[in-house]
Amino acid sequence: MPLKIPDVVIERLPNYYRQLTELRAAGVSTVSSQEIGEALDVTPAQIRKDLSYFGRFGKQGRGYPVDRLTEELETILGFNRRWRVMLVGSGGIARTIASLNDGSFRPAGFDIVRVYDSDPARVGRTVNGNRVRDLARIDADMRDDPIEIAILATPGAVAQELTDALVQAGVCSILNYTSVVVHTPPGVEVRHVNPVLALQTLTYHLANPADPMATR
Amino acid sequence: MPLKIPDVVIERLPNYYRQLTELRAAGVSTVSSQEIGEALDVTPAQIRKDLSYFGRFGKQGRGYPVDRLTEELETILGFNRRWRVMLVGSGGIARTIASLNDGSFRPAGFDIVRVYDSDPARVGRTVNGNRVRDLARIDADMRDDPIEIAILATPGAVAQELTDALVQAGVCSILNYTSVVVHTPPGVEVRHVNPVLALQTLTYHLANPADPMATR
Repeated sequence: MPLKIPDVVIERLPNYYRQLTELRAAGVSTVSSQEIGEALDVTPAQIRKDLSYFGRFGKQGRGYPVDRLTEELETILGFNRRWRVMLVGSGGIARTIASLNDGSFRPAGFDIVRVYDSDPARVGRTVNGNRVRDLARIDADMRDDPIEIAILATPGAVAQELTDALVQAGVCSILNYTSVVVHTPPGVEVRHVNPVLALQTLTYHLANPADPMATR
Repeated sequence: MPLKIPDVVIERLPNYYRQLTELRAAGVSTVSSQEIGEALDVTPAQIRKDLSYFGRFGKQGRGYPVDRLTEELETILGFNRRWRVMLVGSGGIARTIASLNDGSFRPAGFDIVRVYDSDPARVGRTVNGNRVRDLARIDADMRDDPIEIAILATPGAVAQELTDALVQAGVCSILNYTSVVVHTPPGVEVRHVNPVLALQTLTYHLANPADPMATR
């Protein structure tokens, strides 16, 4: 029976992974669901439920083996290999993203190895060492040397049109930096870099400057 | 006794809030922790634990009143009022962010009402209807008309220096769009718009194309 793992669970796993790598660095060899959850304020039952999607890691009452659980999460999340990424767009935002390659992306396992633009005036320029290619050539490029992940950093007006071209060429994961929600067929995953959500976690602190619990 | 609410809990609350607004729109008047958690795949105990930080909303065995819980979360998270935001930077990324004002920020309760730059060559230009002000004037502006939230969208090289100036002027929440991790004194909250984290939730789908659970 195929069991679909909900996105909400997948989004929590990197937190568990980071917690585990810290425990491993501290020399801890076995850890309980309670201990994993403590710093994250997640209940032990929630940890066990989330991890149970991926098989049986721990033995009842004996805790999880830190090394094995870390490695399993690495494999599950794809953190144990490198990922090549194409950048679509070569304007201001795209150039800033490309400049993150050495400092942010590469240490996390991502390499921006190809840059595209659909504007002929920009094709042939250089962005962070990559020559800008013509997006019209993407089908041929993907046949020669496929890349699965695209970062979309173009004006919103062309976002859907370019997304369709990427999907058509075989891209199956898109990180959408534009202001437009793009639609893709089933099997193509999109993540939106969302400043509104980030702002919404800031306003709690502004709405509760003195921490309301102090007086309850 | 002051009780510090962990950031990890605060970051989960907007999810509960969205779930509740959907239930409210569907005409549901009472909801159990089980029902809130179902779509989010969060255990009832985790929901109850997270919500218990904010006082006693539900009656044992009778569920949470949807209207009241939604409104309480709105107040707690600061979603029941509008927030004025300053944009620091007026280059490519900043201009794209400013262009999100009407479509994304405003409907969510945020208004970009002031734009600053520290580059004299850019002061006086217009970005999405806002005249770019000289960041050197921020202290005086803040005394006349304080704004609590800043979006930092400048080159990384000046990010820390400008953050220090913002904090000095009284800004207490910063959404950091630069590639640099900035440091702030206690009480000043920073959120980093993080493309690496977004990419990390995409690789699960690539590392597990056929969903591994199908064969277990």
